[in-house]
Amino acid sequence: MRVKEFVVGLFPILTWIKTYDTQMAIGDIIAGITIALTLIPQSIAYASLSGFAPQYGLYSSFIGPIIYAFIGTCAQINMGPAAILSLLTFSYTNGTNIDFAILLTFFSGVVQLVAGIGQLGFLVEFISLPVVSGFTSAAAILIATSQVKDLLGLRFSSDSFLTTWYQFFVHLPEARLYDSLLSLGCCCFLFAMKSLKDLKIKINTQDESGRRKAKRVKKTLWFISIARNATCVALATVFAYLVYEDIENPFLLTGDIPPGLPAVIPPPFETTVGNTTYSTGQMISHLGSGIIVLPLVALLGNIAVVKVFSQGKKIDATQEIIAIGVCNLVSSFFQSMVVNGPFSRSAVSQASGVRTPGSGIYTGILVILTLLLLTPYFYFIPKAVLASVIVCAVVQMVDVAIVKKLWRYSRLDLFTLFGTLLLSLCVGMEVGLIAGVGIDALLLLYYHSRPPLDVLYVDNGILPAHYAIYPVGGLYFAGAEWLRNKLIAVQHPPTTTTDGVESQPTAPTTKILVIYCDALHRFDYTFLDSIRMLVSDWSKTGRVIWCDTREPIKNQLKGVLTNPIFCEKSQLRAHMVPSTES
Amino acid sequence: MRVKEFVVGLFPILTWIKTYDTQMAIGDIIAGITIALTLIPQSIAYASLSGFAPQYGLYSSFIGPIIYAFIGTCAQINMGPAAILSLLTFSYTNGTNIDFAILLTFFSGVVQLVAGIGQLGFLVEFISLPVVSGFTSAAAILIATSQVKDLLGLRFSSDSFLTTWYQFFVHLPEARLYDSLLSLGCCCFLFAMKSLKDLKIKINTQDESGRRKAKRVKKTLWFISIARNATCVALATVFAYLVYEDIENPFLLTGDIPPGLPAVIPPPFETTVGNTTYSTGQMISHLGSGIIVLPLVALLGNIAVVKVFSQGKKIDATQEIIAIGVCNLVSSFFQSMVVNGPFSRSAVSQASGVRTPGSGIYTGILVILTLLLLTPYFYFIPKAVLASVIVCAVVQMVDVAIVKKLWRYSRLDLFTLFGTLLLSLCVGMEVGLIAGVGIDALLLLYYHSRPPLDVLYVDNGILPAHYAIYPVGGLYFAGAEWLRNKLIAVQHPPTTTTDGVESQPTAPTTKILVIYCDALHRFDYTFLDSIRMLVSDWSKTGRVIWCDTREPIKNQLKGVLTNPIFCEKSQLRAHMVPSTES
Repeated sequence: MRVKEFVVGLFPILTWIKTYDTQMAIGDIIAGITIALTLIPQSIAYASLSGFAPQYGLYSSFIGPIIYAFIGTCAQINMGPAAILSLLTFSYTNGTNIDFAILLTFFSGVVQLVAGIGQLGFLVEFISLPVVSGFTSAAAILIATSQVKDLLGLRFSSDSFLTTWYQFFVHLPEARLYDSLLSLGCCCFLFAMKSLKDLKIKINTQDESGRRKAKRVKKTLWFISIARNATCVALATVFAYLVYEDIENPFLLTGDIPPGLPAVIPPPFETTVGNTTYSTGQMISHLGSGIIVLPLVALLGNIAVVKVFSQGKKIDATQEIIAIGVCNLVSSFFQSMVVNGPFSRSAVSQASGVRTPGSGIYTGILVILTLLLLTPYFYFIPKAVLASVIVCAVVQMVDVAIVKKLWRYSRLDLFTLFGTLLLSLCVGMEVGLIAGVGIDALLLLYYHSRPPLDVLYVDNGILPAHYAIYPVGGLYFAGAEWLRNKLIAVQHPPTTTTDGVESQPTAPTTKILVIYCDALHRFDYTFLDSIRMLVSDWSKTGRVIWCDTREPIKNQLKGVLTNPIFCEKSQLRAHMVPSTES
Repeated sequence: MRVKEFVVGLFPILTWIKTYDTQMAIGDIIAGITIALTLIPQSIAYASLSGFAPQYGLYSSFIGPIIYAFIGTCAQINMGPAAILSLLTFSYTNGTNIDFAILLTFFSGVVQLVAGIGQLGFLVEFISLPVVSGFTSAAAILIATSQVKDLLGLRFSSDSFLTTWYQFFVHLPEARLYDSLLSLGCCCFLFAMKSLKDLKIKINTQDESGRRKAKRVKKTLWFISIARNATCVALATVFAYLVYEDIENPFLLTGDIPPGLPAVIPPPFETTVGNTTYSTGQMISHLGSGIIVLPLVALLGNIAVVKVFSQGKKIDATQEIIAIGVCNLVSSFFQSMVVNGPFSRSAVSQASGVRTPGSGIYTGILVILTLLLLTPYFYFIPKAVLASVIVCAVVQMVDVAIVKKLWRYSRLDLFTLFGTLLLSLCVGMEVGLIAGVGIDALLLLYYHSRPPLDVLYVDNGILPAHYAIYPVGGLYFAGAEWLRNKLIAVQHPPTTTTDGVESQPTAPTTKILVIYCDALHRFDYTFLDSIRMLVSDWSKTGRVIWCDTREPIKNQLKGVLTNPIFCEKSQLRAHMVPSTES
C-alpha cells in the first residue's frame, strides 16, 4: 500500500488519468494547440536571446511538456524556454558554445532534483515579493535592452546594461531602414492584437442566439489575440520571402535551421571553443554560480505559478521541484536549454481551458511536427520580428503597480525592490537576487533593532506601582541597545542642566520592574547577555519579576541570572512586596 | 546657554576638570604610568605586526591618549595601537610602505567622524556577540600565526592562514636556536608573571598591620604582573646587549630606531613604492574596503569597552565615535597607524584605579619621553621577545567559553560564531565580519519562516466554536508559507487514501476564524499579499474576524482586503453570528 502511494505520488498522472474523459481531452487539446502557437515562435526568439541557433529553442520545447504530463501536478504549467532563463543562459554562456548551455541544463536538473529530494524547497520562501518583482522587472528591462539592436538591425557586441545603451546610440546612424520599419510594424501589430481580446463588442445579447453569438465572437477574438505571435512571425516570414527576390537582402534573416529532431546524446562534458578545449572541470568553473542561480530562478518561477493556480488547495512543492528537475535532466539529453513553466504561458493555458498536465503531450507533438516539417520555412524569419516578439512579451513583465502598493502599505519594502532592481541591472542578475534577500534580512534586523516595546509606569491601584514591559515575539541582539536606553531613561530620567546645577528628577521612583513574557518566544545570546547586565544593574536597588514565562525562555534566563524571580500573573502581588530575606 | 551645553558636550574635560583634585590626580598618574609600561612594549611589537618600523608604534601612542583626555568620555579607554587593528593594517598595506598606513589612519578618522556626526553609531548594534567573538578569536589566531616565524627566527613571506602554516613546516629546519630559546624563555616568563597577580599569599591577616601588609604585597605582585611586558623586553634587551659582543649575532634584533618625535606633517596623499608612484586615487583604491573596515572595527572595540565600564549609566555613543575619529584624524598628522582603545589596556587602566580620561596625558608624556630618551637602547630589542609579547597578549583573546554558553542557551548562534570564525580565518577578516552579520540576518529570516503561531480550535462555550490565531510581533514574508500550510491543514484536514477511496474528514467544520491582533505590530508586503489570498479563499465559505487590531495594521488590511471585519474583543460575539445580508 505504501509503495503504491509512493508511486502515485511520483506520477500524479496515475491520479487524474483514471477520470480522464472526452470533455477533459478536448480542453487539453485546445490548450495544447494554443500553447504551441505561443511556444513555437517564443522558443525560436528565446534561442536567439540566449545567443544560440533557433533550433535549440525548439529542441527545448517538446520533451519538457511531455515529461511534465506524467510527473507534474499543475495543469497550467507549460515547460519550455523562458525569457529570464534565456537571458541568464546568455550571461553565463556568452562567448562559448551550445555545449555549455546544455551542460547548464543538465546541472540545473541535478541541482533541482537534489533540492527536491533534500526538501530544500523552503529556501524559496526566503525570497520576498519585492525581490521577485525587482528581479523580474530588471530582467525585462535587460531583455528589452538586448533586443533593441535587433529591432533596428544594428550589429555590435556589448556586455552590460549601460554599455549596450551607449553602443546603441553610437551605432544608431547605422540602423537598417527595412528592419526598423518591419520591427515597428510587428510591434504595432502585436500590441493591437493583444488588445483585441479586451475589445468591447456591440451585439444584441437580449436573446439566446445573440448571447451565443457574442460569446463565439469573443472567443474568436481571444484566440486571434493569443495566436498573435505565430501570426506575426508567419506573416513577416511570408513577406520576407516575397520581397527576398524583389529587393536584394532587405532584412537580416534567421538562416538555415537543420530539419528533424535532435540526436539523443548524453550532455557534453567536454567541448572545444575555437582552439580551446574545455574539460568538465573547466566548463563547470566557467558556468560558475549559474549552476545554482539558474535552477533556483527556474524553480522560483514555477512555484509562483503553482501557488497562483492552486486555488487554496495544498500544493506538493517537493513533487513540483522534482518534476522540474527531471524535466531539465532529461531535456539535457535532447540538447535543450534550461526550461521551466513561465507565468505568461500558464495564463494562456488557463484561459484556454486546460484540465490536466496532459495538455503538454499535445503541445509536445506539435513542436515535434514543426521540427520535422516546418524548419525549411524558418530560413526566412526576419530577426527583427523575433526581437519584436520578445520585446512585446517582456514589456508587460515590468511591474510598475507594485511601487504604488509598497508606498502605501509597506514603505520599507521599497528599499528591497529598488535595491534588487538596480543591482540586477547594473551589477548582475545573480548579484541582484542575492542582494535582495540580503536587503530583506538587513531590514528585518533593522526592524528588530527598534522592537515594539515600551517601559510603562503602572500605578492603577490594583497592584503596587511598578514599571512594566510587554515584549512580543523574539528579542534579538539588534534590539538590545533599544531596551537598554529605555530602561536607563527610566532609571536616570533626563535632567535639565541649568548653569551647571542639575535639577532633581521628578519621575516616579518605584524599583519594581515586571516583564510580562506570555508573548515572548525567544532570546538570542547577545540579547540574553545584555539582559544579564541590565537585570543585575536594576537588581542592585530594585527587583525584576518575570511573569508568565514560557519554559524555554525560563531556562535561558536561569542560565544567566542569579535567582531570577518567576511567577504567574495571579501571584504577582505576593512577589512584588519584598520578603524579609531579599 | 545652548552654545555652552554644546561646547561642554564636545569637550567632556570641562565637566570633570571642575572637580579634579589631588586624589583623582594620583589615581590618574598611577594608571597613566602603568598603562605606559604596557603600551610602550606593545606599541613596538604591534608596529612589527603591521610590518612597519618600531618607531611608528610609538608615534601612534602619544597623541591619541592626550587628545582623548580632552574629548573622551570613558576614563578607562587608552588610545593607541591594537592587535586586531595592526593585523588589519598589515593585510591592507602589505607590500607597500608606511604612507599607506598613515593615509589609512586619516581616512579612518574621517569615516569615524562622519559616522559620529551622521549618528550612524547604531550600525554597530547590528553586530552580535557571536560575530564579535568569532571575529576576535580569528584575529587572535591569525596574529599568533603571523608571529610563529619570529618566535623561531624563521624568515619567509606568506599571505594567508593556511600558507603560513604550510611555509612554517617547510622552513622549520631553518629555525634559529638562540631565538627559539629566547622566545621560549620569554613566553614562560610572561605566563608566570601573568599568573603572579592571582597568587594566594599566606600572611597572617588577623590584625590590622597584617592585613595592610597583605594588601601591600598583593598590590606589589599585581604591579609586577602588569609591568611584565616592559620587564620582559627590558631584560631580554639587556641580555641581547650583553651577549652581542660575546657570540656573533645570536638574535635577530630590532635595529636602528630614529630618535625624537615624529615630524608634524599632513598625511601623505602621494607616495612611491619601489619604482611605482601612487596617486591619491590609486592609494585609496589599494586600501579598498580597509577604509570602511578599519574604522568600523576600531569603533566596535571602543563601544564595547565603553559599555562594559559604563556601569548602567547612559553612554554618549555619538561623542565617543567623534572622539575616536578626531584622535585618528589628528594622529595621521603625527605619522600614526590607526588607533583605538582596546579592552586589554582598559582593564589594566581600571585595575590601576583610573579616575578620568586625564590619565592619558600622563601616558602620552611618558611615551614622548621614551621617544626622546630611550630609542638608542631599542636597537637591541630581540624580535623574538616582541613576538612573545604579542603571542602572550593575543592568546587570551581566543574565546572558548562562549561555545559552551551558546550550546546551552542559544544553539542557532553557533552558526554565526563558527561561520564568522572560519570565514575570517580562511577568506579574510573583513569577509568574516560582514558574513557574520549576514548569517545573523539569515538566521533571523529562518526563525521568522517558522513564526510561533498556531491555528487553534476554540469551543469553550463562551463564544461560538471558531478557529483562533494569536500572532505576535511582526509577520514577515518568510513565515507566509508556514501560516498558509497551517490554514490549509485546518480547511482540508489530511485524509487517508484507502485504495483510492478518500475517507471523510472528521475535524470540526466551523468557518469562523478569529485573528487576535493585539500583539501584532507589522506586516510586510509579501505577507500582506498572502493574507489577501488566504482570506479571500477562507471568506468564500466562512468569515475572518480581525480582533483588537492596531491602527497601522488596520490600514494595511483595509488596503488589500475587501470589507475586512474589525472588532474589539467585547463585540466578538456579535460579529461571529453572520448578519442577514452577508
